[in-house]
Amino acid sequence: MSENKPLILICNDDGITAPGILATVEVMKTFGEVVVVAPDSPQSAMGHAISINKPLRLVKNEQFGPDILSYQCSGTPADCVKMAVDKVLHRKPDLLVSGINHGSNASINVIYSGTMSAAMEGAIEGITAVGFSLTDFSWDADFSASKVYMHKIVAQILEHGLAEGTLLSVNIPNVTKSEIKGIKICRQARAKWEEDFVQRKDPHGKDYYWMTGKFVNLDKGEDTDEWALANNYVSVVPVQFDLTAHHAIQNLNTWEF
Amino acid sequence: MSENKPLILICNDDGITAPGILATVEVMKTFGEVVVVAPDSPQSAMGHAISINKPLRLVKNEQFGPDILSYQCSGTPADCVKMAVDKVLHRKPDLLVSGINHGSNASINVIYSGTMSAAMEGAIEGITAVGFSLTDFSWDADFSASKVYMHKIVAQILEHGLAEGTLLSVNIPNVTKSEIKGIKICRQARAKWEEDFVQRKDPHGKDYYWMTGKFVNLDKGEDTDEWALANNYVSVVPVQFDLTAHHAIQNLNTWEF
Repeated sequence: MSENKPLILICNDDGITAPGILATVEVMKTFGEVVVVAPDSPQSAMGHAISINKPLRLVKNEQFGPDILSYQCSGTPADCVKMAVDKVLHRKPDLLVSGINHGSNASINVIYSGTMSAAMEGAIEGITAVGFSLTDFSWDADFSASKVYMHKIVAQILEHGLAEGTLLSVNIPNVTKSEIKGIKICRQARAKWEEDFVQRKDPHGKDYYWMTGKFVNLDKGEDTDEWALANNYVSVVPVQFDLTAHHAIQNLNTWEF
Repeated sequence: MSENKPLILICNDDGITAPGILATVEVMKTFGEVVVVAPDSPQSAMGHAISINKPLRLVKNEQFGPDILSYQCSGTPADCVKMAVDKVLHRKPDLLVSGINHGSNASINVIYSGTMSAAMEGAIEGITAVGFSLTDFSWDADFSASKVYMHKIVAQILEHGLAEGTLLSVNIPNVTKSEIKGIKICRQARAKWEEDFVQRKDPHGKDYYWMTGKFVNLDKGEDTDEWALANNYVSVVPVQFDLTAHHAIQNLNTWEF
């Protein structure tokens, strides 16, 4: 880092009015200059969607007081990061912090998560990036322990940097600060959602469906994020956006097309 | 595979009326029993978005004639796969084929691609899955060469299967069949999009923005999908949904929180 205060971009997927992003602003302004560009409405489970076929709005506001530059964007979390770099900051920030998400980004949820897509978009653009999530979906979740751990983890990120092509996904268990046992570096647990669509009839007699599902952890490993969270540790997973299954290339080369 | 004909689920992201999915149906019905569940409208660049906060519609149609079971779904590509498994097939298909996409899913585009998110959703659910893309965005793209290579590649997938936790991303260069030099197993090229948002004023004097961008290939390797496509090869990239950067764990364990 330079001796100047770092420029920190903050985004999320629950929308700019969510309490989780306010917690992030409160912590991150102790580290540097904070700029917020976040969705103007909830964008959970948006994965890495971007808006190529519709125009976007970008509106300045004072959501976090007159001293914090803040914009709400009509796009997805990934759109917010792209717009922030091109239209607000006009340069790459030193750090991107996404969240704090209300919910879990552990295990397979990284791939569905709007919070993590914002962080991943930053990493793709070469920005040091991290996403935070507290495993409590409620709007009035208590972020006090999360803020303490965000401070610890961001201090280390700013000191050490991150390996090229990687970002961090941090999940905080929904327990009090005194119950948290510490921080564990983890891998994603192998897990999936088993869907069960609830079928209903609309007032016109036509069927519609609500997605519901059950999270199924297929992984008994004690080095996973799910294990850490279940045992009251904060989980830190290094994440990459190179999706190539390099280990599978050799075998595919034996196929005869 | 069983001696019975395989059950093949077909999805895409350009929507059920796109010519690319018709090409897939035509090829895949030579291999087994085909069922289509695809978006009722274009869903490009939807990444791995899923619909947890809005109800979904699922409507049977005869888009591909009376002999092909076919549904259009109001959700994202990933939603289509989830609904197909839970509400249409009531079991896992033997194979999921997504596409043929009109455009490129090479390099970093895997992460933005709705086509690949459908295939990835299948792989997460334990289904053998592959996504195809022809690097021609036009609606009247010529899929004749793509169909030949889809047949070759799917035959190998059905013979060999795929390693657990992996799926395939196939891109076909936009040249005639005689110009295609063959099939190359590749890794994703390291590349990114440099965004440039075009700013306009609406009739009420308010700003809005269109995302545009320039693809920047940062990778000179000759083992990449971008190299293969530029040299008239069909690229086959094994893709994984475990996003853990396993190689980064050891270093993170040296951090002092």
